Amino acid sequence: MPKRIAVLASGRGSNLEALYAHFTHRAPADAQIALVASDKRDAGALAFAERNGIPAVALEMGAGHAAALATVLATHRIDLVALAGYLRLVPAEIVRAYRGRIVNVHPALLPAFGGKGMYGERVHQAVLAAGARVTGVTVHFVDEVYDRGATIAQWPVPVFSDDTVHTLAARVLRVEHRLFPHALAAVARGEIRLTDDGRADGAPYRARPDAAFALGTPEDDDLARNIAAAFAR
Amino acid sequence: MPKRIAVLASGRGSNLEALYAHFTHRAPADAQIALVASDKRDAGALAFAERNGIPAVALEMGAGHAAALATVLATHRIDLVALAGYLRLVPAEIVRAYRGRIVNVHPALLPAFGGKGMYGERVHQAVLAAGARVTGVTVHFVDEVYDRGATIAQWPVPVFSDDTVHTLAARVLRVEHRLFPHALAAVARGEIRLTDDGRADGAPYRARPDAAFALGTPEDDDLARNIAAAFAR
Repeated sequence: MPKRIAVLASGRGSNLEALYAHFTHRAPADAQIALVASDKRDAGALAFAERNGIPAVALEMGAGHAAALATVLATHRIDLVALAGYLRLVPAEIVRAYRGRIVNVHPALLPAFGGKGMYGERVHQAVLAAGARVTGVTVHFVDEVYDRGATIAQWPVPVFSDDTVHTLAARVLRVEHRLFPHALAAVARGEIRLTDDGRADGAPYRARPDAAFALGTPEDDDLARNIAAAFAR
Repeated sequence: MPKRIAVLASGRGSNLEALYAHFTHRAPADAQIALVASDKRDAGALAFAERNGIPAVALEMGAGHAAALATVLATHRIDLVALAGYLRLVPAEIVRAYRGRIVNVHPALLPAFGGKGMYGERVHQAVLAAGARVTGVTVHFVDEVYDRGATIAQWPVPVFSDDTVHTLAARVLRVEHRLFPHALAAVARGEIRLTDDGRADGAPYRARPDAAFALGTPEDDDLARNIAAAFAR
């Protein structure tokens, strides 16, 4: 049975779109997007869900938040939670109940440029301010602390001299859209799992380092092929 | 006139050897190694210097350290100081006197895996413990704080699933040996300089991102060509 994924998103939902395309067209046997939830009533992610017939829920914040989220995840029989540009901390009781089943994508190479307050454009601003020449994408299991938790995958992205927050964000996002679906699919298939001692067992390293770093090229196909190869068994 | 470089090293001096080979055989017009100094009397770097006819000095530590170092740098008419696996903090008065003329190589992608106590094998231990899939090399101007100061160059290095501290260190070191001489040569030629507001003006970004990330391959020639291309004008 395909795993049932809830996507939590605060923004326009481009990672949601990438996940939806992956699990609808390429890997329907692995998982399906069974729910989209957002802390923001006007999030583009909710509109995308509604347009595509996916149950869409605006989450209550405030005192009843954790209980309401637990209920909605149970109601929709959710197996896996994907945080796709979700700016809220997931309540500790949810993290405990879904241990090893919540996966986040972060637009930098953690532990660099992560932690509280480091989201969205702020991440790329910090990368540019630091004069970094290399940034990237991290997919990781979620625990109770922002941007901590076992690394599932990382991919580097070059920084260019004429980069703005927007050009850098776009380059990183392109990798997020490729890396996150493959990583999540491997978790859905049970190939990657969080061990009791907090490691991501089965998570891929680079068998072919040249492929691992052959990105930043204009050819999306190369990037897609290299990422797919990284997760191939 | 070639710039006169002092190399400060605490270890066996493999980066010193790479710098010496570069400025002796490939870029003698840019700079020459005019002095090797170490805080360790038995450092391999001092033995290498003596074998190659380079003035070699074991630095006094303790109260007179800063003054002694200032004297030896002045005596040898040093223009640039290269920290090549040097484990001591350079005294603040030397940093001020040689502002923009002290360059360090660090075996990780700063600001990740840097700071006090993060040197040698400890860096790679921390990278492996963090589950990072991407590490690298940073060359930067030195200021009064460990591993801070304007970035001159960074290069990514992949982490593999079967890496030990030693295999990872060796892979990173191979990039250090290529990147540090090119970066230092560009500083010696005046093409890269520290601005008053603390940026590394003229420092290269990747014009060809595919080349920038095409490393980790067994072919040293590719790596060397890609790094040389990054600094080409």
